[in-house]
Amino acid sequence: MRETIARIRKFRDDRDWKQFHNPKDLAVSISIEAAELLELFQWKSAEESARFAADNRERVSEEIADVAIYLVELADITGIDLAKAIEAKLEKNARKYPVDKSRGKSTKYTDL
Amino acid sequence: MRETIARIRKFRDDRDWKQFHNPKDLAVSISIEAAELLELFQWKSAEESARFAADNRERVSEEIADVAIYLVELADITGIDLAKAIEAKLEKNARKYPVDKSRGKSTKYTDL
Amino acid sequence: MRETIARIRKFRDDRDWKQFHNPKDLAVSISIEAAELLELFQWKSAEESARFAADNRERVSEEIADVAIYLVELADITGIDLAKAIEAKLEKNARKYPVDKSRGKSTKYTDL
Amino acid sequence: MRETIARIRKFRDDRDWKQFHNPKDLAVSISIEAAELLELFQWKSAEESARFAADNRERVSEEIADVAIYLVELADITGIDLAKAIEAKLEKNARKYPVDKSRGKSTKYTDL
Repeated sequence: MRETIARIRKFRDDRDWKQFHNPKDLAVSISIEAAELLELFQWKSAEESARFAADNRERVSEEIADVAIYLVELADITGIDLAKAIEAKLEKNARKYPVDKSRGKSTKYTDL
Repeated sequence: MRETIARIRKFRDDRDWKQFHNPKDLAVSISIEAAELLELFQWKSAEESARFAADNRERVSEEIADVAIYLVELADITGIDLAKAIEAKLEKNARKYPVDKSRGKSTKYTDL
Repeated sequence: MRETIARIRKFRDDRDWKQFHNPKDLAVSISIEAAELLELFQWKSAEESARFAADNRERVSEEIADVAIYLVELADITGIDLAKAIEAKLEKNARKYPVDKSRGKSTKYTDL
Repeated sequence: MRETIARIRKFRDDRDWKQFHNPKDLAVSISIEAAELLELFQWKSAEESARFAADNRERVSEEIADVAIYLVELADITGIDLAKAIEAKLEKNARKYPVDKSRGKSTKYTDL
C-alpha cells in the first residue's frame, strides 16, 4: 500500500495541489465519487449488477479508483495510516460480530 | 496492500458473508459510509474541519476505514486489482492534467 | 406547497438559523440525509424494500421529510421556486423522453 | 403541492414507468441526484457557493428538481403524504430544539 500512497502523493505534489485539500472538501469529493460508482448499478438488481461489473470491468475499476484516491488523500492530510485504520476497525468489528454468533447469518445485513 | 486485503477477506470469510456481497449493495454501502464520514464535517468550514480531524483522529480514522473496507470488498468481488486500478487512473489523470499546465492552478478544483 | 414552505421557513426563523445556511452546507446536508434514507433499504432487494417501507412507514416518512426540509431550505435561500423548478425539469425530461418512444420501455432505467 | 405531485405522477404514468419504481431504487436515485447537486459546490467555500448559486440559478434549479422529483415519487409509491410527513417532522424537531433554548445558537450545526 505504501507504494500506491507514494504515487498518489507524488501526483498531487507534482501539481502543487495539496494547498486545496482539507478534510471537508475531500469528504465531499469521496461522497460525489461514491455516487458516480453507485450510478453504474442504478436500476439494476444484485444479479444484473454482477453481470454489468463483469462486462464493464474498466468502468467499474475507474470509479473505484476515484473513491480510493480521494480516500488516500484524506488519510494522508489527516495523518492517518490507512492500513492501521483498517486493521483497527476490523478488530472492533470482530468484537461486535464474533465468528460463532455471526457465521452465515445475515443479521448485520438485514437488520437495521 | 496485499496484507490488508487478505485481512478483510479473512474477516468476511470467517463469517461466511461473501454470499451477501454483490456490486450494487457494496456500492450502496460505500455511499452510506461516505456520508457518515462527511457528517463529521457537516456545517464546518474547511479550517474547522482540519481542526476537528486533528482533535478527533480516531473517529475520522474509523469512518475512513468503513469506506475503505467496503471498497476493498467491492474490488475483490469484481476481480479488480485495487493497486493497479489506482495506478491506471493516476496515469489517465496525468494525461488530463499535465504538470506544466496544472501546477498550482486550482482549475480542476473551482471550475465545473 | 406554499403553506409547507412557510412552515419550514417559520421553524428556521423562529430559531434564527438562516445565518448558518448556505448552498454548499445545505447540499452537504441533503446528501447526508439521502444516505440515511438509503440506509433503510441497505442489503435489501427491491421486493424486500417495498415490504419494509409498508411495515415501517413512519421511519421512511421521517427520512423522506429530512431530505425534503433541507431541499426546501436550499431552494428558499437560492431564491428558487421549487414548484416551478420541478415543472421546468418535467418539461425538459418530456422532450428527452417523448411518450411514444419511452412508453413501457426501461431504457432510461437500465442504460447508462 | 398537490398539483406538482399530480404532474410528476402524470409524467411517470404517461410513460408507464411506475413498474420500475421501488423504494430502494428510488432511494438510490435520490442519493445519486443529491451528489450531482453537491458537485456544483465542490471545492467551493460557503461564500463561493452562494455566489455560484446566484450566477447559475438554472443549473442549481435543475439539480434541486431532480432530487425533488425522485423524492415525490418515493413518497407516492410508499403511500406517504409528503406535506404531512414534513409537518410531523417539523413538530418532532420543534420538541428537540425548543425556540428558547435554540434561538441563534449553532449547536445543532456545529456539535455532532
